[in-house]
Amino acid sequence: MNATNTTEYTLALGSQAKVASALMARAPSAMKNVALRALARLLRENTAALQVDNAKDIERAVANGLSAPMVDRLKLTPKVLETCAEGCEQLAAMADVIGEIIGMKQQPSGIRVGQMRVPIGVFGMIFESRPNVTIEAASLSIKSGNACILRGGSEAIDSNKALAKLVQQALTEAGLPADAVQLVQTTDREVVGQLIAMPQFVDVIIPRGGKGLIERISRDAKVPVIKHLDGNCHTYVDDPCDIAMAVKVADNAKTNKYSPCNATEGLLVARGVAAQFLPLIGKIYADKGVEMRCDAEGRAILEGVAGANVTDATEQDWYEEYLAPIVSVKLVDGVDEAIAHINRYSSHHTDAILTTNHVHAQRFLREVDSASVMVNASTRFADGFEYGLGAEIGISTDKFHARGPVGIEGLTSLKYVVLGEGEVRA
Amino acid sequence: MNATNTTEYTLALGSQAKVASALMARAPSAMKNVALRALARLLRENTAALQVDNAKDIERAVANGLSAPMVDRLKLTPKVLETCAEGCEQLAAMADVIGEIIGMKQQPSGIRVGQMRVPIGVFGMIFESRPNVTIEAASLSIKSGNACILRGGSEAIDSNKALAKLVQQALTEAGLPADAVQLVQTTDREVVGQLIAMPQFVDVIIPRGGKGLIERISRDAKVPVIKHLDGNCHTYVDDPCDIAMAVKVADNAKTNKYSPCNATEGLLVARGVAAQFLPLIGKIYADKGVEMRCDAEGRAILEGVAGANVTDATEQDWYEEYLAPIVSVKLVDGVDEAIAHINRYSSHHTDAILTTNHVHAQRFLREVDSASVMVNASTRFADGFEYGLGAEIGISTDKFHARGPVGIEGLTSLKYVVLGEGEVRA
Repeated sequence: MNATNTTEYTLALGSQAKVASALMARAPSAMKNVALRALARLLRENTAALQVDNAKDIERAVANGLSAPMVDRLKLTPKVLETCAEGCEQLAAMADVIGEIIGMKQQPSGIRVGQMRVPIGVFGMIFESRPNVTIEAASLSIKSGNACILRGGSEAIDSNKALAKLVQQALTEAGLPADAVQLVQTTDREVVGQLIAMPQFVDVIIPRGGKGLIERISRDAKVPVIKHLDGNCHTYVDDPCDIAMAVKVADNAKTNKYSPCNATEGLLVARGVAAQFLPLIGKIYADKGVEMRCDAEGRAILEGVAGANVTDATEQDWYEEYLAPIVSVKLVDGVDEAIAHINRYSSHHTDAILTTNHVHAQRFLREVDSASVMVNASTRFADGFEYGLGAEIGISTDKFHARGPVGIEGLTSLKYVVLGEGEVRA
Repeated sequence: MNATNTTEYTLALGSQAKVASALMARAPSAMKNVALRALARLLRENTAALQVDNAKDIERAVANGLSAPMVDRLKLTPKVLETCAEGCEQLAAMADVIGEIIGMKQQPSGIRVGQMRVPIGVFGMIFESRPNVTIEAASLSIKSGNACILRGGSEAIDSNKALAKLVQQALTEAGLPADAVQLVQTTDREVVGQLIAMPQFVDVIIPRGGKGLIERISRDAKVPVIKHLDGNCHTYVDDPCDIAMAVKVADNAKTNKYSPCNATEGLLVARGVAAQFLPLIGKIYADKGVEMRCDAEGRAILEGVAGANVTDATEQDWYEEYLAPIVSVKLVDGVDEAIAHINRYSSHHTDAILTTNHVHAQRFLREVDSASVMVNASTRFADGFEYGLGAEIGISTDKFHARGPVGIEGLTSLKYVVLGEGEVRA
């Protein structure tokens, strides 16, 4: 495509989405649920056919020398597709949040004022690699009464096209506009630049991918962005705490999985419990091959642990999101220093305190400036499903509009509803 | 100031605000209320002294040939100052929303998950003309536990400086950081450009002023903006309706005041009631000197009204925010055409239906895509005080984060709070 064609193409996607969004906003819950169940059925009926389209992406990825984990993430196995289908059915079974009215109260003038939850309108989603995100985003968009424009990675274009076709078929079956979910059909990068700069058509952009992608989009976007940068999460072991519980939770927070954004990267330990706690967790980390990057005091204790891989932490380590079997370890005086360290170095994603002291717990909850703050729980719980949101479109490290795991409500807005009986302003 | 000095100055404001915001976020309600009451007292004690500073602005404005209404808006009369003082006391009397926890529920894993309301951090406010906005913004900022940087208009710089000094004195008296409310002390325009491009220090920008100012700031800002563009509000007179009520409300919506953004600019009338309704409202508008810009059918009816100033509406009239004794008039088939017209031409601020039909009312509420939608009430009610928000920092015509009148909650965010008893993720 040349520049003019790209602009025309993207503007057409935008205006079609805008028209569809008005129809979706007033669609009855029943129709949206019919579409979601139809999509689940179509995913199951077309499992074999989808493998064929998916194979094209896989072959291309292998030929292009993509790493084995990257190739794995592209795969639409029958199991992945069944999970997608079940996700659609779960959404269909959930109550519809659109149209709910909250806080309706009578005012001194006589008017009653409340707020109605409505779809946000049109969202654009820019994502990389895993094609099942196409189904996750499409199904959330349908349930929330929005229209969306999806731009997947070029490496998954054949899979995404096949999936998007099924989504549009499901919408049509349900009597809803096919344009409610549009996939960008070209891998032309210009389209992304256009998509994030059409405030007349697009209400919010949700990028999902590496930090580079998200920084680029945040910088250039002319519409609001729900952005998730990095997850430099902390677990702070307080004095006093239940040492056995602290060992169990600090183990899980770091080693349950290394790659998710909610894995703990920094372990802060109160001096008063360090001599007791650190050798116990150090032994577990050593057995699991976790490198410990320590301050001098932490190192002095952990070097005594058999088989421990202990190194010196640099200033940069306190900022680092390792996404790997590495943890930074720092001793602190107590809750004050822990809060100060976290507010300085954390990425404001998720931070936890392990404590038995009520006052420390309350201060940590109130003063740590992160999207999720936890007491006596693993940072790994920071997740839309674990929080009971039913589904997750992303995790926001911003404070504006949506913060933390973003479910359907993040794709809605509240408008004021005023009911009167002929009242006028004095 | 030269460019380097300006940058250094603005960055200093930003980093001081950031430090102050952490202290404000954990300030007890009682201290914030002490500061607000101290500010009310100081405004009353310094009424005479404030007149002296205010007189400098007034003299300069007159010398510069500003229009009489502009000069009026600059005036800090004892009455204006008393209103400011009372506003501070009302805020002090209100419950503190900071720290409230909503929706705490146990999840299948055993963790309990809820959301805590916390200050957004630092907001920047850019406003024109009326110096009392300094007190409104400062008091809302204190109550909501934020820090703010205020940039008033150059025409009110002496008044704003004097008011800001009292605000800082009140903060200091209460044991809160003076930097929690900083006024930009220079009229250098470069500062605005810097202020809206410091995401490391400023969480949100709130511009209040003309459309040009807001469009410029929205275009150049690198942080979220709570923006209020124009108020092209509609009143739709449905078939069926209570004609007497419709006349009363349509009169108030247009003529109560011409300059506010929530005044009705467009009157839509269902054909079935036009012959009965239009001559009645036309007579009132004619008596009050309101020009009626009509479609052909409306004109045919209204030309029969004695003394009516009736002209032909152009396509541009449907978009216009007159802020003047002018109203556009258009006949429509019914609620469908009214909704379509409003969603096309309205500025998504406030639109009302006057009807006795329940189904029409429900459709209008659900389908009109505006920040405030009303049934049988004057659009003039779209206001933070009338909605019971206690105070108003602005009105948002956006869908993101805050929509409609923005009170204290618009200056807060919700973070997730997770309470566990040592749960780990499977």
